[in-house]
Amino acid sequence: MADTPKTRIATSDETSITVRGHDLVRELIGRRGFTETLYFLTVGEFPSAAQARVLDACLVTLMEHGLTPSAIVARLVADSVPGEAQAALAAGLLTVGSVFVGTMEGCARLLKEGLAPGVQADAYCRDTVARHRAEKKAMPGFGHPLHKPDDPRPPRLFEVAAEAGVAQAEIALLRKLGAELDRQAGRHLTVNATGAVGALLLGVGIPVEAMRAMAVVSRAGGLAGHLVEEGATHSGRAIWRMVEDGIPYEDPEK
Amino acid sequence: MADTPKTRIATSDETSITVRGHDLVRELIGRRGFTETLYFLTVGEFPSAAQARVLDACLVTLMEHGLTPSAIVARLVADSVPGEAQAALAAGLLTVGSVFVGTMEGCARLLKEGLAPGVQADAYCRDTVARHRAEKKAMPGFGHPLHKPDDPRPPRLFEVAAEAGVAQAEIALLRKLGAELDRQAGRHLTVNATGAVGALLLGVGIPVEAMRAMAVVSRAGGLAGHLVEEGATHSGRAIWRMVEDGIPYEDPEK
Amino acid sequence: MADTPKTRIATSDETSITVRGHDLVRELIGRRGFTETLYFLTVGEFPSAAQARVLDACLVTLMEHGLTPSAIVARLVADSVPGEAQAALAAGLLTVGSVFVGTMEGCARLLKEGLAPGVQADAYCRDTVARHRAEKKAMPGFGHPLHKPDDPRPPRLFEVAAEAGVAQAEIALLRKLGAELDRQAGRHLTVNATGAVGALLLGVGIPVEAMRAMAVVSRAGGLAGHLVEEGATHSGRAIWRMVEDGIPYEDPEK
Amino acid sequence: MADTPKTRIATSDETSITVRGHDLVRELIGRRGFTETLYFLTVGEFPSAAQARVLDACLVTLMEHGLTPSAIVARLVADSVPGEAQAALAAGLLTVGSVFVGTMEGCARLLKEGLAPGVQADAYCRDTVARHRAEKKAMPGFGHPLHKPDDPRPPRLFEVAAEAGVAQAEIALLRKLGAELDRQAGRHLTVNATGAVGALLLGVGIPVEAMRAMAVVSRAGGLAGHLVEEGATHSGRAIWRMVEDGIPYEDPEK
Repeated sequence: MADTPKTRIATSDETSITVRGHDLVRELIGRRGFTETLYFLTVGEFPSAAQARVLDACLVTLMEHGLTPSAIVARLVADSVPGEAQAALAAGLLTVGSVFVGTMEGCARLLKEGLAPGVQADAYCRDTVARHRAEKKAMPGFGHPLHKPDDPRPPRLFEVAAEAGVAQAEIALLRKLGAELDRQAGRHLTVNATGAVGALLLGVGIPVEAMRAMAVVSRAGGLAGHLVEEGATHSGRAIWRMVEDGIPYEDPEK
Repeated sequence: MADTPKTRIATSDETSITVRGHDLVRELIGRRGFTETLYFLTVGEFPSAAQARVLDACLVTLMEHGLTPSAIVARLVADSVPGEAQAALAAGLLTVGSVFVGTMEGCARLLKEGLAPGVQADAYCRDTVARHRAEKKAMPGFGHPLHKPDDPRPPRLFEVAAEAGVAQAEIALLRKLGAELDRQAGRHLTVNATGAVGALLLGVGIPVEAMRAMAVVSRAGGLAGHLVEEGATHSGRAIWRMVEDGIPYEDPEK
Repeated sequence: MADTPKTRIATSDETSITVRGHDLVRELIGRRGFTETLYFLTVGEFPSAAQARVLDACLVTLMEHGLTPSAIVARLVADSVPGEAQAALAAGLLTVGSVFVGTMEGCARLLKEGLAPGVQADAYCRDTVARHRAEKKAMPGFGHPLHKPDDPRPPRLFEVAAEAGVAQAEIALLRKLGAELDRQAGRHLTVNATGAVGALLLGVGIPVEAMRAMAVVSRAGGLAGHLVEEGATHSGRAIWRMVEDGIPYEDPEK
Repeated sequence: MADTPKTRIATSDETSITVRGHDLVRELIGRRGFTETLYFLTVGEFPSAAQARVLDACLVTLMEHGLTPSAIVARLVADSVPGEAQAALAAGLLTVGSVFVGTMEGCARLLKEGLAPGVQADAYCRDTVARHRAEKKAMPGFGHPLHKPDDPRPPRLFEVAAEAGVAQAEIALLRKLGAELDRQAGRHLTVNATGAVGALLLGVGIPVEAMRAMAVVSRAGGLAGHLVEEGATHSGRAIWRMVEDGIPYEDPEK
C-alpha cells in the first residue's frame, strides 16, 4: 500500500484544478468560504451551516491573545529576516505545541472517550478526574494562569454552539468533568478556551488529529497582524534589549 | 521610540480579552467571521461585506494545488515528527517564498505604482514591460508552467470582484499590463492566480507587506488537509523512496 | 526563581565577550575547536581529548546519509526561497524528530537506567527486552531498514571509543541488550548508528536532553552540502515532478 | 538536465555508506574531524590543516553571543514544545538572516569582487565606499552596536589566519576597505566579526553561497547550550512576562 500511495486531495491540468472531486473555479472560489473549504479539505465533506459557523467561532477565538510566545518569536524573526514573512510566521507557529494548545486535543480525547457507546458519564468523570489527580497531571482544558475565576471565552463559545444546535453532548460532558474536578479539588478551576474549543471542534466533526492544524491556521491569522505592527514599531530590538537586561549573566566559575 | 514600543493589538485581564479596542467575547466570537477578523487584525478596521467576500475568495484560491513543494515538505516532516502537526505545517509554510508566492506582492507593487496619482497607464504599462524584458526578468503575476493558454482562476476572481464592486481599477491595470506584455513578447502569457490575487488584495486594502501572510494563512488551511491524508497513507516513506530512486548517485571522483 | 532567571552562558561589553567565564577571544577562538566548544557550551566544562574525539566521531557519523527526508525538505525549501539558506536548513532540521533520531535518546535512556547503581545487568536486559516485546514496541537503537545484517557504523564507533578509553560500560551494556534482543526475538537485529551514538554520547557525559541538539548540529553540517549541490542541480523541481507523478490523484467521490 | 538530476553526495547499501566517493566508516569516522568533514561536504575536497583550522576558528567565533534573538526564540519554543529540541533549534536558526549574519556574505562578495584579476585595490575601495555612502547603505562587515571602538574578535581571527598562512589577501583588502571607510566617514567604524569571518571563509575556499550555512552550523552549536540552560531555568516564562510588561497596550480607538 505504502508503495503506491494515492492522493484524494487535488489534481490539475492545463485548464482546471480539481479539489476533492470539485472544480476549484466553478464550485469553490466565491461560492464556499475559507472556513467551509478548510472543513471540506480536512474532513472530506462540506460542513453544514451550523458546523461552519462553529468552526469559524473557534478559529476567531484562538487568533489573538496579545504578546504571547508565538507573537514574540514571530516579531524577533521578522526583525532578523525582513521581506520573508513566512519565516517569521513559521517560527511563531512552531510554538503551537503541546504546552499551550495541545491541551485542546487532550481535552477532546477525554470527551471522545467519555462519549463512546456504553460509557456511563458520572463514573467516567469521577474516574478520569481521580486518575489525573493521582498522577498529579493537569486536566487538559481546565485552569488558566490569568483568567480567574473564569475564562470568559467558553460561555460565549457554548452560546454559539447552542444557537447552532451542535456539540451539545460534548459541552455537557465538559461541564460535568469540570464540576467533578471542582468537587475533587475542593476549589474552582475554569473550563478554558482550549477545552471549549476542543469540545466544539469534536462536536462539529473535526478529527482530533486535525485540531492542532486548526489552531495553527487561526494563529497564523493572528500573527499576520503582529507582523504588520512589527513593521511599524520594530519591537524586536526592544524585546532583545529587555531580555538581555532582564536575565543577567552570572559567572559559572564563581 | 523603539525604546518604548507599544502594541495596539490586544490586552487581557482576569475577565476579558480586548482586541484592537473591541471585546473578543462580546464583539468578535460568533459575530465576526475568521476572514473578517483576519482583515481587522491586519488592516486595523473591519472590512465591508464586499471586501470580506473578496479576501475570502483569495484565501480559497491559494489553499490547494495538489502535491506542491509545501505539501511534500509538510508530509515528510509529519512522517518524521508524529504528534506535532505545527512542525510539519511550519516546515511546509517555509516554502511560501519569493519564487512561488512572492510574485503576488511583486505584481501588487507594480499595480500600486501604476495607480499612483498622475501616472499615465498606457505609458506605465509600456515602460514596465519593456524594463522587465530588458532586464530579462519575468513579470510577476504572469505566466504559468502548467495552466495554458490561461490559468482558470483569474477570470473567476475577477468575476467575484466585479460582483462585489471592488478592485476594478487594479484589475483593469492588470489586464492592460497583460495585453502589453503579450504585444511586446509576441505571444500570450496568462495572468496567473498570484497576479489576480495580488490585484484583488490590493483593491480591498490589504497592505502589500501583509500579502505574504495572507498566503501563509491560506496555505496553512490547505496543508491541514494534507496532514490528515498523510496520517492515513504515510506517503512520506514513498516520497523518500521515489527521490532516492529518482536521483541516482554518481561518484564525484570519476 | 522563574521570576528572576539568570544566565551562565555569555555576556559582553564594549571590548570583550565572555563565554561561561572564559574570554572568547583569548581563550576560545583558535585555541579550542568547534567540537570542544560545543561540549563546553553543552556540558559546562571542557572535554578531555578523549571525550572531544568521541563526540567528534559521533557528529561525523550522523552528518550524511544521502537523500533522506531532511535533505529532500531542505532542497525543496531552498528552491522556493533562494538566498535564505537558514530557512531551508531550519525546515530540513525539523525532521530530526522522534522517528529517526529520537531513538538515540531512547537508547541512551535505557543504558543510563541499566547502569544505575545496584542494577543487575542480565536481569535488566532480560526484563527490558521482554517489556518492549510485550508492548510491541521497537527497542530504540536496534534494527535498520537497509543495513543488514549489520549497520556498518557501530563497530567503527566502538573502535574509536575503545581507542579513546571511554564509554566502555555503555557499549558493553548495549551489546548485552542486543544479544538478549536477538535471543528473545529468535533473529538478529543490528545495533544501529543511533544506538551506538547514544551509547557514546552518554559515555562522554552529554546529557540525554542535549543529544537531539547534537544530532541537529551534525545534520546542519550535512545539509550545508546538500544546499550547495541544490544550487547547482535544482533537484527541487525534479523532486516535485517525481512526487506528482508518483502519487496519482484518485477521485474521492468514486 | 533538471529532468534527470544526479547527486554526488552519498549512497549506501546493505553494508556500506559512501560519502562523496569515500567510505564513511573506513575513511571518515574517527579519521576526519567534524570541521574537516563539513568542509569536505561543502567544498567537495578535504581541507588542508590550515584551512580546517581557520574554518574551525570561524565556527567558534559565531557560536555564542549571549541572549540574542536566536537564543530568545529557541528558548520560547523549547518552553512551548518540550521534548522536541529540533523545533526550538529550527525556530532559533530562522533568525540567522540577512540583518545579522547576511553581512558576512555581503562582505565576502565585496572582497571577492575586489580581488578579481585586474582590479586595482585603492580605486576599488574608494569607489565601493563612495557607492555605499551615496546609497546610504551600511558597508557589510563594518560597525557594531556594542563593540566600540573595536570588535575584539577580528584581530584574533586575523592572527589565527596569519599563523595558518591563509586568507592574507582577503584580510589585507578588508583592512584597506576599513581604512577608506574611516577616511570617507570621518570617524572610525570597526571591522566586525561577520566581516572578518567573511574574509577568512572566502580565503579558505568556502563558496559565498555556503557561508550562511556555516553560520547556521555554528549557531546550532551555540543554541544547544541555551536549550540545556532553558531546561533548568525555564526562562521562557520570564521572557514572556518581561515582554508583556515592557510593551504596553494602547487603545487604537483613542
